Amino acid sequence: MTERLILDCDPGHDDALAMILAAGDPRVELLAVTTCAGNQTIEKVTRNALAVCAVAGIDVPVAQGAALPLVREQTVAADIHGDSGLDGPVLPETTRALDPRHAVDLIVEEVMAAEPGSITLVPTGPLTNIALAMRKEPRIVERVKRVVLMGGGYSRGNVTPTAEFNIYVDPEAAEAVFAADWPVTMVGLDLTHQATADADVVERIRAIGSPLSQFVVDVLTFFGSTYRERQGFDAPPVHDLCCVAALCDPAVLATRPAFVTVELAGRWTAGTTVTDFGDLLGRPHNTDVATTLDRTRLWDMTVEAIERLSRTGGAR
Amino acid sequence: MTERLILDCDPGHDDALAMILAAGDPRVELLAVTTCAGNQTIEKVTRNALAVCAVAGIDVPVAQGAALPLVREQTVAADIHGDSGLDGPVLPETTRALDPRHAVDLIVEEVMAAEPGSITLVPTGPLTNIALAMRKEPRIVERVKRVVLMGGGYSRGNVTPTAEFNIYVDPEAAEAVFAADWPVTMVGLDLTHQATADADVVERIRAIGSPLSQFVVDVLTFFGSTYRERQGFDAPPVHDLCCVAALCDPAVLATRPAFVTVELAGRWTAGTTVTDFGDLLGRPHNTDVATTLDRTRLWDMTVEAIERLSRTGGAR
Amino acid sequence: MTERLILDCDPGHDDALAMILAAGDPRVELLAVTTCAGNQTIEKVTRNALAVCAVAGIDVPVAQGAALPLVREQTVAADIHGDSGLDGPVLPETTRALDPRHAVDLIVEEVMAAEPGSITLVPTGPLTNIALAMRKEPRIVERVKRVVLMGGGYSRGNVTPTAEFNIYVDPEAAEAVFAADWPVTMVGLDLTHQATADADVVERIRAIGSPLSQFVVDVLTFFGSTYRERQGFDAPPVHDLCCVAALCDPAVLATRPAFVTVELAGRWTAGTTVTDFGDLLGRPHNTDVATTLDRTRLWDMTVEAIERLSRTGGAR
Amino acid sequence: MTERLILDCDPGHDDALAMILAAGDPRVELLAVTTCAGNQTIEKVTRNALAVCAVAGIDVPVAQGAALPLVREQTVAADIHGDSGLDGPVLPETTRALDPRHAVDLIVEEVMAAEPGSITLVPTGPLTNIALAMRKEPRIVERVKRVVLMGGGYSRGNVTPTAEFNIYVDPEAAEAVFAADWPVTMVGLDLTHQATADADVVERIRAIGSPLSQFVVDVLTFFGSTYRERQGFDAPPVHDLCCVAALCDPAVLATRPAFVTVELAGRWTAGTTVTDFGDLLGRPHNTDVATTLDRTRLWDMTVEAIERLSRTGGAR
Repeated sequence: MTERLILDCDPGHDDALAMILAAGDPRVELLAVTTCAGNQTIEKVTRNALAVCAVAGIDVPVAQGAALPLVREQTVAADIHGDSGLDGPVLPETTRALDPRHAVDLIVEEVMAAEPGSITLVPTGPLTNIALAMRKEPRIVERVKRVVLMGGGYSRGNVTPTAEFNIYVDPEAAEAVFAADWPVTMVGLDLTHQATADADVVERIRAIGSPLSQFVVDVLTFFGSTYRERQGFDAPPVHDLCCVAALCDPAVLATRPAFVTVELAGRWTAGTTVTDFGDLLGRPHNTDVATTLDRTRLWDMTVEAIERLSRTGGAR
Repeated sequence: MTERLILDCDPGHDDALAMILAAGDPRVELLAVTTCAGNQTIEKVTRNALAVCAVAGIDVPVAQGAALPLVREQTVAADIHGDSGLDGPVLPETTRALDPRHAVDLIVEEVMAAEPGSITLVPTGPLTNIALAMRKEPRIVERVKRVVLMGGGYSRGNVTPTAEFNIYVDPEAAEAVFAADWPVTMVGLDLTHQATADADVVERIRAIGSPLSQFVVDVLTFFGSTYRERQGFDAPPVHDLCCVAALCDPAVLATRPAFVTVELAGRWTAGTTVTDFGDLLGRPHNTDVATTLDRTRLWDMTVEAIERLSRTGGAR
Repeated sequence: MTERLILDCDPGHDDALAMILAAGDPRVELLAVTTCAGNQTIEKVTRNALAVCAVAGIDVPVAQGAALPLVREQTVAADIHGDSGLDGPVLPETTRALDPRHAVDLIVEEVMAAEPGSITLVPTGPLTNIALAMRKEPRIVERVKRVVLMGGGYSRGNVTPTAEFNIYVDPEAAEAVFAADWPVTMVGLDLTHQATADADVVERIRAIGSPLSQFVVDVLTFFGSTYRERQGFDAPPVHDLCCVAALCDPAVLATRPAFVTVELAGRWTAGTTVTDFGDLLGRPHNTDVATTLDRTRLWDMTVEAIERLSRTGGAR
Repeated sequence: MTERLILDCDPGHDDALAMILAAGDPRVELLAVTTCAGNQTIEKVTRNALAVCAVAGIDVPVAQGAALPLVREQTVAADIHGDSGLDGPVLPETTRALDPRHAVDLIVEEVMAAEPGSITLVPTGPLTNIALAMRKEPRIVERVKRVVLMGGGYSRGNVTPTAEFNIYVDPEAAEAVFAADWPVTMVGLDLTHQATADADVVERIRAIGSPLSQFVVDVLTFFGSTYRERQGFDAPPVHDLCCVAALCDPAVLATRPAFVTVELAGRWTAGTTVTDFGDLLGRPHNTDVATTLDRTRLWDMTVEAIERLSRTGGAR
């Protein structure tokens, strides 16, 4: 059965690849793209989402969402994603109209209108929109099939030693999402740091020879440069892509059940996804935590998706 | 100029009196009533809001809002307000329809449609709806005239030694409201504990001799009994009424400017409205904090409002 | 029966008066003075303690204690007590030797050597020494008669809106003291702000006409000037004096039982003495909290003590 | 040059092996053993320390230390170490006298009496004694050569998902130790989980054929059984041994510099050793963090130490 998904993102280089895979892999159906401030401000990430749609020929509703975290002051990731949030490639002018609805209303309406259990939410930015949607319409919790989110980690962080960016930016929203009674898959840094776009991957994409493939190469080249300079990586980890990949083919990643909760009160640890694979905390497991990536599957399906979108005239 | 207000409440005995004063005092115009889970669950407080409208002949839109706090688990105040949230009086059956909008959308639409600076928000329950509205439409912050909220305190709490119920229930929402760049008046326990409905007040209301006045007497009688048993008060403090009273006549309370922020991280102090009248914390003052009540004015205007609504056939 | 006490202090203007009352009132017996960093560094407050002994003719062991709080970085109160910790009066050179023991060992040895239940500890600075003594020799907890400490408050703070200096400086030590199973009396700001040395008091002291009385006048004059400038007081509250006064004559202050605990984790509220007079927190009452001062008794006994020490040649 | 060390421990199975290695390896000189409540109460761990001395023929001062953590309530590890703290082997009656000094005084006196920079502190239990010693005599910080402690971890915990037992039990003491200006080596779970006593190791020790070797086999057998049942390990990680091993031969473990601080305020993360190998927190590196163990070296030196003590008649 085709996985039907709403991608809630903050493009963002890795978000762009997540959008492309979601649009180009026949095993999933992308229903809509919603945006959330995260890697950059809401205006910038929304503009970037529209630009990626234009380049990749993605024709689904795009709705703009939250400009600010639930409680905390805003943090963006200009050091990684540049001033535009998607530095590197030349972005096309885009005249396409946004969906008139707020992202929160789009999510609520689509979920409540669809068959129960038929829509998967894939948040790859801060979880502000998802938390707002849950609080505005609590019934979505039982209607959604599951939530497959990029965020957190069980042995590391990237903003602080223990906190990952998406969770750190809006930990209160994240806690609401983990605590709700729906199936959550956490695709965190332990998994996504395996998803590096190494030189061979970039070459395979470049070899496709389309405007879209060149766009992706430009995206990965910029992303690789900031990850090398800022975090000492040889090649950039394409975090958000992994969530969509897991919907295309569950075999792309292995998971383990755990109890996950978000630390909100620590002086040093706010935004940490505390992950109990055993029973140290005595809480029922509430999350499938991604642990191991099948890199070959990931990049094979991604290259294929870019090829397919390139053939179908996606890139204009 | 008439003060135009949206009353965001969780009736609740003192909320009921706030509704009655807002509807019965000619110096203010009640635009809508929105409900938020607090004293009881969202279904109960919404039902109570409709019942108070029926009894008092209040004919404004009533919209239902948030069922759960932003992040924390739900707490209700059945010990004070009873199982229904408005125990004591016999509540009429009500067939009146709710506004089809969610409270958050009603607030956003009304504020964005009105003249800038013309609408005051009066939250007398947890601040969940207000925070959700701000996050869904950040522009309301500059469009609202001000926020006059019942909550908090600078020298005491009532759920914990330092935290008041409305703030304690959803401290994250409260912090978002205090931190936003709009004028906030905090009508907290230091003020509202002066607003007791003593025996003479109850007698004045009873003497009006209308169904509405009897309803109010029943409300105050039950409220008095729980405040006597649970908190050792001689007469019940009618907290929420004071916010509306301050709109009817600013002279009803004195305020002092302060910096107010909400403690979110304490083991014992979560939900405390930390109030710096001086400069201990080195932060700009962001709140007018109510300190002293003119009890006579408060009860005079309240008795008059009940009389007026009784005459105009408000109570049916 | 004479109250036998060890005064653990950080002189400090109000500590100086506490020392003088403890030495000059016949109803108490001052066994030793121990010092703790607080108002100033340990070297300065120890020097000041020796100087006060010299001026007032106090001939008891003086032992130096902790230089740093248990965990937190050091904070001193130069804005209130000046660079020396006792600015204002001319301090005599003092050649007197310190007790060779560390304050912690003096406290432990004296308590363990005395009759059980015969010694009261009177800490008027941060509680570092007391916490260290308890942890080094846990049996002192059952041997001490009680602890009468200056610190905290139930409706106000003076370093932050909710935290008082002595507790704020070393909240971990304070929490250990409140949590231990011994009788604790908290003489906090709600009480001590009633203990102002108004002009009439200063005049009574000045009229004694001795070198010691002039010293006290100088102490109060400086203390009054900083309290006026920094905190807007008309006259300085002589906090520490109240603890000793309560030992001289219990009628000098009224107390109410409460559960008291120290907030250690708050972002804004660290060092708050959370005080539950009722049963909001469901914990057994562990502290007698001073609420109301008999100002007349306080100053009468203080004036008498200064007179007595002046007569007996205390001031040299 | 011989490394001179004071072993501050809470035996404890792995503490017992640390004692044996410290006494049996000629490259280090064990000056004293001090005890701290941790794995069990202070009476039990002190009794166990004396018993290990008796079995292994260790003839150095043994001083008893802190019975309680600085601030928090006591936690022991009976699930891992049994009711005695050293369940498994038969413990000899021991008539040997304790050093009359408190552990804190022993540490202070030895450090202050020795050449500056000549003594290494090796805490393998909670850091209460070390923190108390630092606060009683701050000058030890500049006199100690370094602190090589077992505790913490950078990617895992064992009491909670992120906190290790020794740090979790007294996080305030640990924070004081990490924050002080002396060289600290953190030998945490990431390292010590490599130090498992696998079957081949146990067989090598058994083959020595002495009463002491049999004692060690009994220790490891019990420790292995609880680690298997409680934590799912195939073989028990002999944590504390690694600290002493690093003094015997620095090549036994690799370290990386980092900034380490202890979370004190988190709801879920209290006791976490937040470890910043890079510059996420912008703080100077203050700790050498052990990352990789040379297992062969570890067990070779441990077997040799047991042999040596067995030959010299250590075990009786």
